[in-house]
Amino acid sequence: MADTRPRLLHLDSSAGPAAESLTRRLTTLFADIWCDRHGTDGYRHRDLATDPVAPLGPAYVALGRRLERRGAVPPEQVGALTATPDERREWALTLPLISELRAADTVLLGVPMYNFSVPAALKAWIDRVTFPGAFLDPGTGGSALSDTRVVVVMARGGAYGPGTPRAAFDFQRPYLRAWFTDHGVAEDNLHFVQAEMALASLVSHLARFRDQADASLAAARKELAELATRPPLITKVRA
Amino acid sequence: MADTRPRLLHLDSSAGPAAESLTRRLTTLFADIWCDRHGTDGYRHRDLATDPVAPLGPAYVALGRRLERRGAVPPEQVGALTATPDERREWALTLPLISELRAADTVLLGVPMYNFSVPAALKAWIDRVTFPGAFLDPGTGGSALSDTRVVVVMARGGAYGPGTPRAAFDFQRPYLRAWFTDHGVAEDNLHFVQAEMALASLVSHLARFRDQADASLAAARKELAELATRPPLITKVRA
Repeated sequence: MADTRPRLLHLDSSAGPAAESLTRRLTTLFADIWCDRHGTDGYRHRDLATDPVAPLGPAYVALGRRLERRGAVPPEQVGALTATPDERREWALTLPLISELRAADTVLLGVPMYNFSVPAALKAWIDRVTFPGAFLDPGTGGSALSDTRVVVVMARGGAYGPGTPRAAFDFQRPYLRAWFTDHGVAEDNLHFVQAEMALASLVSHLARFRDQADASLAAARKELAELATRPPLITKVRA
Repeated sequence: MADTRPRLLHLDSSAGPAAESLTRRLTTLFADIWCDRHGTDGYRHRDLATDPVAPLGPAYVALGRRLERRGAVPPEQVGALTATPDERREWALTLPLISELRAADTVLLGVPMYNFSVPAALKAWIDRVTFPGAFLDPGTGGSALSDTRVVVVMARGGAYGPGTPRAAFDFQRPYLRAWFTDHGVAEDNLHFVQAEMALASLVSHLARFRDQADASLAAARKELAELATRPPLITKVRA
């Protein structure tokens, strides 16, 4: 029987103590609401900080290049094309990450800004799942992510929005937008929810921004609660 | 006696088979010329792909936040402020990376573009060395990197320069420029050398770009040889 239950893939990438992590508190809020509505069977949580994605080895690159030369195939056909034990090991580390991303209706990411960009823990996931043909839909020839909804929860120490003095230092939101849209996620399905001035409660010279930080957090909570109660965009049918 | 020998810190981050890595071939060219002139005593090579920087743990973040609250101190004073065995372990993983970066007159980085940005292996290094006070010069109160020369060797599968259709997808060069200049490296001391269309020799649908790739590689080699023979900008005096 086809499996049509909604699925949420929840990724966290903050390295900080869990109790102090703003992105973890906000992704948990979303996940709790979602699980209340849909149950926990379709819920998958992956903590990229405490359970890091393995660094890429040479065999990963060799396998990817061979696939590029011959033309990409859907992920389930890659295993048969591995040529060495190292390639099989690399692919065994990769396929589950790609499969759970493809299976999700909604992908929820907790992404603090680290040094103007995404945490290395999240980049390690991106580097591994970005494999030739990973998001190819064999039925349509298009992207398997074209109906996937992506909710990115961002926290930043300061303010980096358009018009602020630090806007040119934002390599977090524009980067994730570029990567997800390049892999077939529709602009309309890509949601960024941000809590800015996250350091204001921690660092005394930013104390004057505490009201701004509180308002930003309240707005983020409201937006996430609204997104979490929306029905799935589509029902993915899985064999 | 003060140690005034020139020092080169050479970082590679390509995950691919070493023999096929364009950035490794180019950083090796630079390092060989440099060592011919200055000897190998001041040469330090760190391979971020085969010897990955450890992912950040909660104690790293807790220690960093404590330092931000109390006000940053120079790196050699941080050890005395660690409060737990986990914090001491995190700091022991961090201090050597910061020290060798501060000690170098020239920092040479091999940086392939992975998924529009820097490899996760390099981001892990950036995330760890970016610690409160890491680049504070206690003598001047400014940056310890203000006279450091940085040479970034980039390889990209395609062309991402200004005016190309993919320019907005370049989160590699603008990102490294932002990070290094924000940490006190002078614009004039920051050199980007790039080999573009690196995939042209590997992938048949890019074969028409092979001449462009060859020309880009030849120009990169020439530029690196010239940079490697320049005398150090300054002589760093170390206690």
